[in-house]
Amino acid sequence: MGLTETESTPETLAAFYRTLQEHDLQPLWQIADQLLTQSPQPATKPWMWRWTLLLALAERAGKLIDIHEGGDRRVLSLANPGLGGQPFATSTLWGAVQYLNAGEHAPAHRHTPGAIRFILRGDGVYTTVNGDGCDMHPGDLVLTPSWSWHDHNSSADDPVVWFDGLDIPTVQALDAVFFENYPDERPQDVVQEHNRSERLYGGRGLLPLSAGAVTHRHSPLLVYRRADIDAALTGLLEQCGGPMASMEFVDPTSGRPVMPTMGCEMHRLVAERRTRPFRKVGSSVVVVYSGAGSSVINGRLFDWNSGDILAIPSWAIVEHEATEPTDLFAITDTPVLKALGLYREEIHQTPQHITEVFS
Amino acid sequence: MGLTETESTPETLAAFYRTLQEHDLQPLWQIADQLLTQSPQPATKPWMWRWTLLLALAERAGKLIDIHEGGDRRVLSLANPGLGGQPFATSTLWGAVQYLNAGEHAPAHRHTPGAIRFILRGDGVYTTVNGDGCDMHPGDLVLTPSWSWHDHNSSADDPVVWFDGLDIPTVQALDAVFFENYPDERPQDVVQEHNRSERLYGGRGLLPLSAGAVTHRHSPLLVYRRADIDAALTGLLEQCGGPMASMEFVDPTSGRPVMPTMGCEMHRLVAERRTRPFRKVGSSVVVVYSGAGSSVINGRLFDWNSGDILAIPSWAIVEHEATEPTDLFAITDTPVLKALGLYREEIHQTPQHITEVFS
Amino acid sequence: MGLTETESTPETLAAFYRTLQEHDLQPLWQIADQLLTQSPQPATKPWMWRWTLLLALAERAGKLIDIHEGGDRRVLSLANPGLGGQPFATSTLWGAVQYLNAGEHAPAHRHTPGAIRFILRGDGVYTTVNGDGCDMHPGDLVLTPSWSWHDHNSSADDPVVWFDGLDIPTVQALDAVFFENYPDERPQDVVQEHNRSERLYGGRGLLPLSAGAVTHRHSPLLVYRRADIDAALTGLLEQCGGPMASMEFVDPTSGRPVMPTMGCEMHRLVAERRTRPFRKVGSSVVVVYSGAGSSVINGRLFDWNSGDILAIPSWAIVEHEATEPTDLFAITDTPVLKALGLYREEIHQTPQHITEVFS
Amino acid sequence: MGLTETESTPETLAAFYRTLQEHDLQPLWQIADQLLTQSPQPATKPWMWRWTLLLALAERAGKLIDIHEGGDRRVLSLANPGLGGQPFATSTLWGAVQYLNAGEHAPAHRHTPGAIRFILRGDGVYTTVNGDGCDMHPGDLVLTPSWSWHDHNSSADDPVVWFDGLDIPTVQALDAVFFENYPDERPQDVVQEHNRSERLYGGRGLLPLSAGAVTHRHSPLLVYRRADIDAALTGLLEQCGGPMASMEFVDPTSGRPVMPTMGCEMHRLVAERRTRPFRKVGSSVVVVYSGAGSSVINGRLFDWNSGDILAIPSWAIVEHEATEPTDLFAITDTPVLKALGLYREEIHQTPQHITEVFS
Repeated sequence: MGLTETESTPETLAAFYRTLQEHDLQPLWQIADQLLTQSPQPATKPWMWRWTLLLALAERAGKLIDIHEGGDRRVLSLANPGLGGQPFATSTLWGAVQYLNAGEHAPAHRHTPGAIRFILRGDGVYTTVNGDGCDMHPGDLVLTPSWSWHDHNSSADDPVVWFDGLDIPTVQALDAVFFENYPDERPQDVVQEHNRSERLYGGRGLLPLSAGAVTHRHSPLLVYRRADIDAALTGLLEQCGGPMASMEFVDPTSGRPVMPTMGCEMHRLVAERRTRPFRKVGSSVVVVYSGAGSSVINGRLFDWNSGDILAIPSWAIVEHEATEPTDLFAITDTPVLKALGLYREEIHQTPQHITEVFS
Repeated sequence: MGLTETESTPETLAAFYRTLQEHDLQPLWQIADQLLTQSPQPATKPWMWRWTLLLALAERAGKLIDIHEGGDRRVLSLANPGLGGQPFATSTLWGAVQYLNAGEHAPAHRHTPGAIRFILRGDGVYTTVNGDGCDMHPGDLVLTPSWSWHDHNSSADDPVVWFDGLDIPTVQALDAVFFENYPDERPQDVVQEHNRSERLYGGRGLLPLSAGAVTHRHSPLLVYRRADIDAALTGLLEQCGGPMASMEFVDPTSGRPVMPTMGCEMHRLVAERRTRPFRKVGSSVVVVYSGAGSSVINGRLFDWNSGDILAIPSWAIVEHEATEPTDLFAITDTPVLKALGLYREEIHQTPQHITEVFS
Repeated sequence: MGLTETESTPETLAAFYRTLQEHDLQPLWQIADQLLTQSPQPATKPWMWRWTLLLALAERAGKLIDIHEGGDRRVLSLANPGLGGQPFATSTLWGAVQYLNAGEHAPAHRHTPGAIRFILRGDGVYTTVNGDGCDMHPGDLVLTPSWSWHDHNSSADDPVVWFDGLDIPTVQALDAVFFENYPDERPQDVVQEHNRSERLYGGRGLLPLSAGAVTHRHSPLLVYRRADIDAALTGLLEQCGGPMASMEFVDPTSGRPVMPTMGCEMHRLVAERRTRPFRKVGSSVVVVYSGAGSSVINGRLFDWNSGDILAIPSWAIVEHEATEPTDLFAITDTPVLKALGLYREEIHQTPQHITEVFS
Repeated sequence: MGLTETESTPETLAAFYRTLQEHDLQPLWQIADQLLTQSPQPATKPWMWRWTLLLALAERAGKLIDIHEGGDRRVLSLANPGLGGQPFATSTLWGAVQYLNAGEHAPAHRHTPGAIRFILRGDGVYTTVNGDGCDMHPGDLVLTPSWSWHDHNSSADDPVVWFDGLDIPTVQALDAVFFENYPDERPQDVVQEHNRSERLYGGRGLLPLSAGAVTHRHSPLLVYRRADIDAALTGLLEQCGGPMASMEFVDPTSGRPVMPTMGCEMHRLVAERRTRPFRKVGSSVVVVYSGAGSSVINGRLFDWNSGDILAIPSWAIVEHEATEPTDLFAITDTPVLKALGLYREEIHQTPQHITEVFS
């Protein structure tokens, strides 16, 4: 073994480490333990934002802030306290509440981060996505995929509030963010009839002839309706029983997630039944669409009601228990982890001990 | 050029050809022209079977023939007169009318040829497919894919009639036919709730979580309902205009055809508008689900009404013109031709001359 | 049960069957047994053509037949005696011996059936495939895929003989045969350097940057060299042991078979060891490239030597036993059966009884 | 527009922003510009580490540091000065130099980050990957994919040095790092014959029969030899001309990158010819395997010689010009960006102005 013991004094070592640092090198043997951990050690904390607070602050922003301030969007982003001040709900996902006053128009732009809109309150708004006007109603999911032009338009009498989910942290970590405003400040060209994607790709087991042969980067179906979501969950629950029925929103031309960077899910909880402890690699942001109950995440108890939003870190153990029939909407980074061969999941047998209560 | 002219007399040639034949060899230069034709020369003829006749003969079979005769099915198969007495509608597709009397039970078996059932008349029958009871109503499509157990069961007061489409000629040409009766003459084990596949895979843009990651040989969704078909055609026609809106039945977990060997399509014709002449490699069997009109196939005119069935050969030029709103159901071999890299299609500008009228 | 017994006399039945026939219909219950057999019943017979005979007749054709006779190719096709006079080696595969005299030029054409050339004897010929001159040496495999222009050109001093394998029966059964002669009788435009595909796609585990992202209908690598085949078989045999090492020729950009309609394989047999009985759905044509031994196919014994060619039907049980180290080349329809979800295979434990000897 | 101007005083706004911060929320309109930039703004700097220095420091580590210190590996990792002290060569890639003294054994472990080894100097070492002993020679590439057991073993008389490339930053950003030491400190079970993967998957256009049908997370071929790399580059350069021939290391069973998280490339530069300015989304680490020349990256000139290592940020404009025939090895994150639909590239016409010289 080539090690010349005589040289290895504390002084020679210290000098050696200084030399390394001066030349932009680091010794793996001093950092291997932090770097290659036995299991994921996410900075993301299990966290919750309450709807009552979110709504009150969004309404306040609706009064205080003109929509044409920076970014042309009135958005409050969830900043997980574990992430050192970054405006991200988890290490890979952006979550936010967007608020559009009656009659407002949020002008068109596009960006490589992909976005979804899950409508929480209000009617009378549509989002135009590459010329297709997508009507938005509570409980609907609307996609504005990577690099598609999109604007939001209100003809409502009241404000409308929705949840924004984006893959910004992932796209940023890959140094792949591009952004562009719509040319010449013109309004986006809109085709006359709304909900074009729904008419083309909204069939049950039916696609326009030969459409299945075309490969899309993201779902060409841009709107998923509450009534269909409800029917699908009802059917699955009838078939498979509780405590939880879980559906995924998919690209109907491929059966794959709606976007390569972000998955969308809907979970229906049967009241008074606890789910088995579950964990997976990858994080989630969960929006309580309706119902009430509680979750235990890594031993921490979260009591929630309709509209509350939770952040779940990678590899955190999760159990849910509803006190009334509950629907949870979630965004995840699962498609990324599966595409890269890094996905794992575990179901545990023993419920967690509650060691802390979130308040 | 090594050819020794002196040897090549008519006598030496004749002797040579005899020798080849004796040793199970054939000279390509004598058959190349028939073998490698400039374009497909199908033996299949453009043909039509009239519903009035099909129904009358099926009813007669219902009276004359016990269902437990050979094959345990009361089926009249379309035998294209171009195919030399083979019981096939086209060179690659089997088409037939199946007739089940009130209260009858067609016992379970399975075979490698895949089948579809498109219901034409009557209610109160279900087909059990691998234990899943699939209710059948007029205008529904029910799949019994390759090698899945299936039986047909009537609790109806009246006979039920449906169209059977199979890939038998293709599977036979590949020497891949297997068949098995259900063990011990027992009835197939059936799970209690009918239409399980519909509850699991019948969502619009929604699948059970992770279902999209599983690869299926054929669609796990086994029933496609008339109401959904109608809604999809309506939406597509609104979006794209006429003269014809064409949808494909797909596997919702992949967007691909319902089976690898056979495609299913639905076409809606706007009245009084002629489609442009179209041809493609691969054959079809077309069932007039509703409406009336005519088609020109390779210059031959076919007048049709609801229930009539047409055979369309490969590479035949086809135009349709409906006299009232019309829905056509079709089976095709398109998935085979596409999988093997042999698919082509053409749209022509000039209507065909009618040279013959089918009667 | 709707059956009115009184009607079903022999006379009414006979009349009914006549009516069906008149209207191009057939009763399934009378043909179900022949149609849906318990296992494949191929018309193809296990068969063998001897090299001594093939070579002698090919040489005779070389003297008697001008290459510019029908088809521009001097080809003796294997006509399996089970196939009723059709010029096919099996129900799905064409096999033949092609003979090119010194200095001959077989002009360019293209057709939708795909072809492979496996060189048996002679040097100094190249096949131009879409402008790429592919040099041919004994033991090489050269592809002329579906719809690619190809001609054969000799600058040799002696005749050259190769095995032709095509998918003609399959493409014909699908009514998808197209054929075209090269325009204006001109020679095909040839780029200067031969073996372009080999330089681009012939790397071991290396492809031109981004080439792996492009989807090809067939392998873009058009030549596979004997030295590489030999090295691959040697490595596999070292690793896995005998009695047989089996490699498949693949598209290096996808790892898939070289063509969607036809697979190419190479098998090395260790002397004096018998392979286990094996059968699969789909047929093969096997060329003894080198060595000697015997095969048992469905109980029939075939003794073979270098150059002999065997036809193996679908689902036939096969065992090989070499008397000296042997390399077998084979074409198969396996890619078709796998693409259509119809492939099966079985390994048996007990050697077959020999019931017949082929002579 | 619902904005009540009267409320929006500096004081009310300041109070509102404080309230947001207290509740872990951030206003998008204040951060949108930094977040959604017009094009990528990587923290990674174009950088270079000189071989003379790397080798000298690695040799010094070889004398000072026992291999059984933390991590069981003697590795100097490249720490890009733009990344705030993180031990990463770019925002998504780890690059390092590993040094193994004569006779040393680096014990087995596994981790979800995938690694490649590109051998720079020395002979007589093998890496065992899941029981397969992979011999390492200069210019070879050896894979130790995600979650595969691996150890490094020297029977050499001299030290061996190689480049380590890993996807650690990406796997860490996704909170997906798992690590495990080989059980019981035992040596990894090794099968007797080395280079098993090479014998199975090292064929040119040949795979073990049916191997192409199996889907792998990463290449089952674990070693790529210098002689093959050289031959492939020679062929490509002959075919396509200079100034640069670029090959990608691929999984021979799929044609896809060797790992889903990291691509490996080899580029041959013709002397005295400048490449056109090129940029792409995603970063690279480039190792000069042989030759000499210079690169311009975002206007900064880097003069390099054999063994030097460069970091290239996402979207940086790059030109190369060699003064002698040069081979560059590179790792990239391209497979990630392509899988997530975020890849772009551009070729520019005008050479960059050099604004800075790296020293």
